[in-house]
Amino acid sequence: MARTLNGARVLVVGGGGFIGRHVVRAVKDAGAQPVGMDLVAPDGDLANVPWVTGSVSDPALFATAAAGCDSVVFLANSSLPNTANFDLAAEVGAHVQVSVKAAEICNDQGVRRFVFASSGGTVYGNDSAEPLTENAPTSPRNAYGASKLAIEHYLRLIGAMRPMWTVALRVSNPFGEGQRALRNQGFVAAAMQHAISGTTMPIWGDGTVERDFIHVHDVALAFVAALVAEAPPATVNIGSGQAVSLRQMLAEIETALGAPVPVAYEAGRVVDVKRNVLDVGLARRTLDWSPRLPLAEGLARTAAWWRAQ
Amino acid sequence: MARTLNGARVLVVGGGGFIGRHVVRAVKDAGAQPVGMDLVAPDGDLANVPWVTGSVSDPALFATAAAGCDSVVFLANSSLPNTANFDLAAEVGAHVQVSVKAAEICNDQGVRRFVFASSGGTVYGNDSAEPLTENAPTSPRNAYGASKLAIEHYLRLIGAMRPMWTVALRVSNPFGEGQRALRNQGFVAAAMQHAISGTTMPIWGDGTVERDFIHVHDVALAFVAALVAEAPPATVNIGSGQAVSLRQMLAEIETALGAPVPVAYEAGRVVDVKRNVLDVGLARRTLDWSPRLPLAEGLARTAAWWRAQ
Repeated sequence: MARTLNGARVLVVGGGGFIGRHVVRAVKDAGAQPVGMDLVAPDGDLANVPWVTGSVSDPALFATAAAGCDSVVFLANSSLPNTANFDLAAEVGAHVQVSVKAAEICNDQGVRRFVFASSGGTVYGNDSAEPLTENAPTSPRNAYGASKLAIEHYLRLIGAMRPMWTVALRVSNPFGEGQRALRNQGFVAAAMQHAISGTTMPIWGDGTVERDFIHVHDVALAFVAALVAEAPPATVNIGSGQAVSLRQMLAEIETALGAPVPVAYEAGRVVDVKRNVLDVGLARRTLDWSPRLPLAEGLARTAAWWRAQ
Repeated sequence: MARTLNGARVLVVGGGGFIGRHVVRAVKDAGAQPVGMDLVAPDGDLANVPWVTGSVSDPALFATAAAGCDSVVFLANSSLPNTANFDLAAEVGAHVQVSVKAAEICNDQGVRRFVFASSGGTVYGNDSAEPLTENAPTSPRNAYGASKLAIEHYLRLIGAMRPMWTVALRVSNPFGEGQRALRNQGFVAAAMQHAISGTTMPIWGDGTVERDFIHVHDVALAFVAALVAEAPPATVNIGSGQAVSLRQMLAEIETALGAPVPVAYEAGRVVDVKRNVLDVGLARRTLDWSPRLPLAEGLARTAAWWRAQ
């Protein structure tokens, strides 16, 4: 049994971002009526989507945006993995408090479901030879992960105590069309940009660390699956379930682009764990979702997008 | 190898509370110079302890209090297990943000060690037949536990990134002299008060749920152990390690008091898990600390205190 989204209003907070744009499209493809919210109005194929322009940290504006919506996909990020560490107390206020407040406002506005983008790449923290299940010990390795995990726990309480259903998707390392190589985010985007510009890409360590890369379209479909599932768990991993080393990934990127990625290996950072790969069995069983797009196909689409920039 | 506390200034934030008063005494017994901080000035045997009267949420006042201290024991609680659930966003600001800010201020003031009182009774959340190790899955069952766990994660980051060492003690169910039967806190205190006043004590469920009760003097010694240990872990369970049902506990309390506790068993609350008992092996190995006081002796001391009220 699944809920139907036909004609339902779904607010996508952070809808103008990398993942958000794909979620808006996937929500529309699923028959729902997406409403975007972000700091700036959208362009391109999203220019005609109903939109609320402004900040989620404005409670009155956000309440207006949430009113009348069946569901909310929450992709707003006020922190970034590499900068949030400098002022932790401010990070708590800007990220955790704003997100929890937003969820409470949604419940107050009669929203039935709140799907939150958590981080499968930063909440677990410790090395693990096996793919990580949702019950693996959590030990966030940066402020971004600590905030994501804290929000998850408050959302689980909201889901247990209030009428609104809450789901947190622990997304691994997403890549794909629209991801910019900014602010140290996105290994694939950075590699594509370095290949196209012919500049050298610094890689911390020897490139043997393994990650779980997933194409953003599969991620967007996971958000839709979390919206329609009858009774999704409070926390679910979303990833490819496959371990791929940075060296392997570089070779795949070079194949997709048909061009070399100039790299320089540098001394490893202590923050980098050897292996972070997700077990996605719970998503298969409870969301009827699986990663579909083969890595080579996802990279081919991404390469085509970069060549068109 | 252990650090010496001889003559070192140790700030005990929340020093006027139930656990705090015992920690101030234990810190003094260990040869350190305790400084208390709380909303009100202390009385009784603590009247001559140097004291900062005010709120930890005042950054300037707190910086003054922390300046010149070797270590800080942080027992300040702006939330209570049974009331924090009503306004989660406010809880995040008042508890998580204030605590993280306080830790950052301590680091800025040159404090070497920050020992935080977390909650072994609320962070794990799920039922477990076995005693819970620090790696057991965390799933806080109320806002109090969610906040404690969030603070733990930020403190671990501070310990990893800044000069100050951080330790979080996940304390189970403390009881003892000075614990008041207020605001639904403290099963032992409530039972003692009901026995003395001859009023009926409501007990949710059939009294077979098992908890881990530990006398507050052992808890205070654990804080001292965390202050002196050479390299304590970021997170450590502190409890008796023994499962005791509420029914067994009532029988022990009646023996200690020499009086019956009138009880009425009522329908169980969904928030109550069947069993929450801590594995304290890590504390034994890394803090050279073990629970010492037998349950009967701890209850005898507590009963004597209640009879003197």
